[in-house]
Amino acid sequence: MAEIEFWYEFASTYSYPAAMRVEKVAAPKGVAVRWRPFLLGPIFGAQGWTDSPFNLYPAKGRNMWRDLERICEAEDLPLKQPPFRFPQNGLKAARIALAGVTDGWTPAFTRAVYTANFAEQKDIADDGVLATILGKLGVDAEHAVSAANSSDNKQALKAQTEEAIARGIYGTPSFLVADELFWGNDRLEQAVTWAGK
Amino acid sequence: MAEIEFWYEFASTYSYPAAMRVEKVAAPKGVAVRWRPFLLGPIFGAQGWTDSPFNLYPAKGRNMWRDLERICEAEDLPLKQPPFRFPQNGLKAARIALAGVTDGWTPAFTRAVYTANFAEQKDIADDGVLATILGKLGVDAEHAVSAANSSDNKQALKAQTEEAIARGIYGTPSFLVADELFWGNDRLEQAVTWAGK
Repeated sequence: MAEIEFWYEFASTYSYPAAMRVEKVAAPKGVAVRWRPFLLGPIFGAQGWTDSPFNLYPAKGRNMWRDLERICEAEDLPLKQPPFRFPQNGLKAARIALAGVTDGWTPAFTRAVYTANFAEQKDIADDGVLATILGKLGVDAEHAVSAANSSDNKQALKAQTEEAIARGIYGTPSFLVADELFWGNDRLEQAVTWAGK
Repeated sequence: MAEIEFWYEFASTYSYPAAMRVEKVAAPKGVAVRWRPFLLGPIFGAQGWTDSPFNLYPAKGRNMWRDLERICEAEDLPLKQPPFRFPQNGLKAARIALAGVTDGWTPAFTRAVYTANFAEQKDIADDGVLATILGKLGVDAEHAVSAANSSDNKQALKAQTEEAIARGIYGTPSFLVADELFWGNDRLEQAVTWAGK
């Protein structure tokens, strides 16, 4: 079956609409989605950025939020900026998302975390917020968090980020179809078409 | 008549497909295009960038060229990277483009300069290249260059860039519909739809 890899970071604004619609765009074309959470922080850090470019460059940041409003309106997605901090810290959520791949709840967990971050103004680094999300999905939170914090899983997340860098990823969301890289929520349709070729 | 402003910089890669298709997208919707050449260099410089972000961040640059290839292929546009220098220096071309607004040859001149830059591997800072382009459009090159280099026109280009900054522009191509800002070739359709509302 044709496949796209969906690479995302929980702090990333444009990954929110991408996560909410990736399956809806891919499924009708017979394309499977492989969900690949990772951390963008180390990549940005290596470029000398100590903060999101949307904070470092205020004009760019202002227009990103306006653009995201227009996108979410068109997609009928709620949008509220995290009031306390942007970008939020997605480390714990990324570890949990990666730990869920084997059991198959990563996509639903991912969508719920993005909703918490960009629609519900919740702190996605808060253990209680993450446990509640897992509970609602019928996942044993204690077990999932324990698996997330195992040294194997922590190492796997680091390897995930290293793989992202090695394969040319520099921002999120990114889509990979074998070696073909597409960057941005607005390239999703193109990536799916490419996968179906 | 509804109008979009098309803000562009001659060194900008994504402004190339935007320039080639902006009229084709806008005209069927009854939307007029106001062509607004300006210089992005001062804006980038104020952000601390001394070079194009596509050079400063190599992974981003590599994927930009690949993405542009895919876009140009879909639009049936030729694409060849300028072999000697990227970004090229678009100062002279921008001055000439601005000087042509009154006489109406700015759109055709702009498309020809982008073609020279990104398809024909010509030096768009070369006086002979620019004179040849003007000649092919039936424009008196000597007169146009003289108007371009008048202190009034030089000042007008500076004012154009200052207006871009004041209105929130931080990259190219950008489209403005009154105060609504859209950034990127991939936002052209959205901007035209907005103008037609």
